[in-house]
Amino acid sequence: MDGGQGEAHFMAVIEYDGTDFSGFQMQPRERTVQGEVEKVLASLTQMETRIVGAGRTDAGVHATGQVISFVVSWGHPLEDLKGALNALLPADIAVRELKRASEDFNARRSARSREYCYTILDRPVRSPLERRFAYHFPAPLDSGLMQEAALRLKGTHDFASFGRAPSGTNTIREIYRIECSRDGDHIYVELEANAFLRRMVRSIVGTLLWAGTGELSADDFEAILSAREREGGGKVVPAHGLCLIRVNY
Amino acid sequence: MDGGQGEAHFMAVIEYDGTDFSGFQMQPRERTVQGEVEKVLASLTQMETRIVGAGRTDAGVHATGQVISFVVSWGHPLEDLKGALNALLPADIAVRELKRASEDFNARRSARSREYCYTILDRPVRSPLERRFAYHFPAPLDSGLMQEAALRLKGTHDFASFGRAPSGTNTIREIYRIECSRDGDHIYVELEANAFLRRMVRSIVGTLLWAGTGELSADDFEAILSAREREGGGKVVPAHGLCLIRVNY
Repeated sequence: MDGGQGEAHFMAVIEYDGTDFSGFQMQPRERTVQGEVEKVLASLTQMETRIVGAGRTDAGVHATGQVISFVVSWGHPLEDLKGALNALLPADIAVRELKRASEDFNARRSARSREYCYTILDRPVRSPLERRFAYHFPAPLDSGLMQEAALRLKGTHDFASFGRAPSGTNTIREIYRIECSRDGDHIYVELEANAFLRRMVRSIVGTLLWAGTGELSADDFEAILSAREREGGGKVVPAHGLCLIRVNY
Repeated sequence: MDGGQGEAHFMAVIEYDGTDFSGFQMQPRERTVQGEVEKVLASLTQMETRIVGAGRTDAGVHATGQVISFVVSWGHPLEDLKGALNALLPADIAVRELKRASEDFNARRSARSREYCYTILDRPVRSPLERRFAYHFPAPLDSGLMQEAALRLKGTHDFASFGRAPSGTNTIREIYRIECSRDGDHIYVELEANAFLRRMVRSIVGTLLWAGTGELSADDFEAILSAREREGGGKVVPAHGLCLIRVNY
């Protein structure tokens, strides 16, 4: 950044279908959300731009409410930048909202909490129409039992049983809200936390499945949390059921 | 069909994501739903089998409740045939229900009515996650005005303004139910009729859009129906918003 004339700070809410991305974060020779957005911003502003994302979603994870921040020169109306971005971005990314941001706004560091939703299709037969967005679980799940177990996670805990922290940091996080609900054949697990460990939502959901089938009581579930060992938890459920739905500031 | 021993009549409810099919009906050198199902039935039963579908959905049209009928030899339990079909069918087709049918059952001829749903995403910005299943219409639509116009179609009419009949047949059909409703950013147009002309739902929805934007009154809409000329109607909306949801017998 050269702090040149006309540069302005922006925040955008973006939606993407994670199916064909190697995750959010830029990686050489991989198709990533960050890479695609930066490419379009560069072609619109004729300058290289780095964007910051609130959540580094893994390969295959979707977003309806990812938030990004960036600094570019743009002398035209804000709505034109939004329109140009949506015209040039590939079909699997869109900008839902675009606003001016204050100079100290950073989509990642300024975020107060993130909300994710994991969608399970709980019916005997797989669904062709939902195969990109819901994890198919053929056995019947009791969302009430899942919710009973899930509530043990609320609050501040060491979540080492459910994920790894970036090196040099700890595994303590605070979950503000966790809700398992059923709507027809769908079970939704919604989580809000200050921040998440890598694969934390998918490890939690994988373990909640055991609660949902009755294999694991809420007390057993809490014991897994308390053990603070990754080996105790259930398997990590696939990325395609997960969606970053909101970031709060 | 050789009427050999052990042959039985079946009906199945199937779901498919129409995106990558050249429609339901078999066509040489094209990937069709019929072609894929017949290929799997042939490999399971070691005999060539023709299936009959209740609705010949066009390229790109989806189904959650298409019904097919067929006759095969199958000496094992019914559930095993269903399981084998779902194991061998590609990810974009699944068998939701499978039942024995009477000898005179024909998915197409026996059908009393078909139900389709057309999904419109009515918001300024396109949706990456719904791009395969909802038609994006950026201008605001009034679903109440759409419903007022739509009700003029109820009953038995000559629908020549909204589609073509197979050669040698007429364009008279009976619509039992038509409902335009809004849920958040989505507008759903649901239709039930004894049968549909080719592209009839998509022509009706294309014309209802004019009612939804206020360009066309319910009376004007009815005049288009009465004109019985294909030129009067709105454009045919894209296939990807359309889904065959149920067939009634």
